[in-house]
Amino acid sequence: MEFYVEKSCGKARAGILKLPHGIVHTPVFMPVGTQASVKTLSSEELIDIGAEIILGNAYHIYLRPGTDVIKLAGSLHNFMNWNRNILTDSGGFQVFSLSELNKIKDDGVIFQSHIDGSYHHINPEKSIEIQYDIGADIIMCFDQCTPGDADRKETLNAIKRTEKWALQSKEALERLNKENNKKQSLFGIIQGGIYDDLRIKCTEKILNIGFDGYAIGGLSVGESKEDMYRITNLVSEHLPFDKPRYLMGVGVPEDILNAIEAGIDMFDCVFATRSARNGTAFTRYGKLNLRRSDLATQFEPIEKDCDCYACKNYTRAYIRHLFKAKEILALRLASIHNLRFLIKLTEMARKSIIEGKFQEFKNSFLSEYKIS
Amino acid sequence: MEFYVEKSCGKARAGILKLPHGIVHTPVFMPVGTQASVKTLSSEELIDIGAEIILGNAYHIYLRPGTDVIKLAGSLHNFMNWNRNILTDSGGFQVFSLSELNKIKDDGVIFQSHIDGSYHHINPEKSIEIQYDIGADIIMCFDQCTPGDADRKETLNAIKRTEKWALQSKEALERLNKENNKKQSLFGIIQGGIYDDLRIKCTEKILNIGFDGYAIGGLSVGESKEDMYRITNLVSEHLPFDKPRYLMGVGVPEDILNAIEAGIDMFDCVFATRSARNGTAFTRYGKLNLRRSDLATQFEPIEKDCDCYACKNYTRAYIRHLFKAKEILALRLASIHNLRFLIKLTEMARKSIIEGKFQEFKNSFLSEYKIS
Repeated sequence: MEFYVEKSCGKARAGILKLPHGIVHTPVFMPVGTQASVKTLSSEELIDIGAEIILGNAYHIYLRPGTDVIKLAGSLHNFMNWNRNILTDSGGFQVFSLSELNKIKDDGVIFQSHIDGSYHHINPEKSIEIQYDIGADIIMCFDQCTPGDADRKETLNAIKRTEKWALQSKEALERLNKENNKKQSLFGIIQGGIYDDLRIKCTEKILNIGFDGYAIGGLSVGESKEDMYRITNLVSEHLPFDKPRYLMGVGVPEDILNAIEAGIDMFDCVFATRSARNGTAFTRYGKLNLRRSDLATQFEPIEKDCDCYACKNYTRAYIRHLFKAKEILALRLASIHNLRFLIKLTEMARKSIIEGKFQEFKNSFLSEYKIS
Repeated sequence: MEFYVEKSCGKARAGILKLPHGIVHTPVFMPVGTQASVKTLSSEELIDIGAEIILGNAYHIYLRPGTDVIKLAGSLHNFMNWNRNILTDSGGFQVFSLSELNKIKDDGVIFQSHIDGSYHHINPEKSIEIQYDIGADIIMCFDQCTPGDADRKETLNAIKRTEKWALQSKEALERLNKENNKKQSLFGIIQGGIYDDLRIKCTEKILNIGFDGYAIGGLSVGESKEDMYRITNLVSEHLPFDKPRYLMGVGVPEDILNAIEAGIDMFDCVFATRSARNGTAFTRYGKLNLRRSDLATQFEPIEKDCDCYACKNYTRAYIRHLFKAKEILALRLASIHNLRFLIKLTEMARKSIIEGKFQEFKNSFLSEYKIS
């Protein structure tokens, strides 16, 4: 992996990330392919919307189809016919979000499969092995993510585990890379909830271990927007200039722009595709309810100048009809549009950074975009 | 509309059908787009699988989005971004298949919407007007379809209505074509259940009225295969050589080949897409259950030499995974494959007719294809 900042504008950065499956231009939005599929889309469509890297989920893929199947296919890339880059998350977030099924201990997590109820033990070594077998271009450390309302004590415990597991993750990957003469990359994850001092403490520890890139985890998990922005800024300031910075699980257009301003390079979120399937489209003016009755005779695209397949070929009237009639094409067209919207947003942000006009771009975008 | 038989081979015919939205090479399979969408597919994908004409449904489109919306869009073609041909069925089949909600009288049908329970009256004039407004390249007469187990008396009543309604349909379209200086085409429909004499009687009446093409309705509605094949052959023999012949609601590969042998030119059926969504793929060896556990590590396409997008890009192992994980891409890939399979079947049949080898092609296909 190679990374450099091509141009800065304030704290915002336009970077180049060279990975085994091609160049990634940052800031970048990564569509989420939880179960080896970015919901509703083909790999051709992902290329068409300009995706340079997608996110896979170690926890889900480990359970189904299983790492053995992915190994036989050669890699997750082969399995799902995606020849560009894949970043996998470690399963740490699932430890949090599916926590009713899980028991967290210092040496790892015992969890019950949400599919068949079977029990599994996962620890840093196991998580890294899974991600390694998947063939991820970027592997994430196994971490413990705390909810937005976690108290200091719980958060402190979590960062202690996260730090310990980060070291174990690094050692596990170094061993695997050495054994197989490969060089898959590893990102460290910084936890610490909404506690500034714990975030700084965790950042220092993770930086001391040393990784190819750094992620801010444990945000967009129920905390306030103020907390999210403050912590993003705080941690970002403490991260080295020459490594990529990834804000996990964010997000929506306004959060992405604020984070880019704080110096973040990478984003992922299921919100774009999930809200698409629920009938909500992003537009430059804010969200649009695609079931709204006045769309029934609007023979214009979701967004007039949008270059996505949905907007170039279909009208609001038709897409509304598809949603009302419960036709699957509705989910596809809205997903394509929303993903393209976010990818285009990062592309425009990048361009504005290179031109030294990020602040103007952000202000101009937010002056039109109604946050709801 | 223009139609001619390019080449015959026994009773099988390779024809050219010139319609307002392009040439259709017959025999042809028409994918079904009930609600202004061929389920799961985009119009780009329909072109990619070689569809030259699709079927729309007057009954469904009239109820949702409504003819007023289609008229504002210009045509169903514009509305759904499909620039090739559309044949609409008249609603006659829905009179039969949704019969609990309907009351059939000599002057038309009163039916209750399956969407909101509202009452509507439809008669031949109304049906033709709807199809005319939709902009269908081929309009079907309003008819009464009887179930596979209908007795003689019920069937006799139905063909009397069908004959009366056919004349009314023709007059209605002639009026509309004249008023608007257009020339949309109209096909007559022959009913008569499994009663040879009633079929012949109905055929004569419908031929006497005179249409651009002739359809055999009321088959594939619960009768035996023997009855279906016998009636298809019987009616087909009585149809004029120089007009296209359409067997409605058929079908599966073996039925399509038998009907081509009997001189049928056009087919439609929802079975290909419905079974795809249920996880069943057509292959040259018969049906394949895409959820079957031994597919989990089969890193080969559904069918080795298939030229469809699914087979060129994805493996059985991946598609099985998508079905198990309930991912929408599964439904898309299986639908693309099954539609391409049937369209390819008619393309190959056409080629064999032109080469004077239809019988050999049919025998060879059926010797491999396991009917289940």
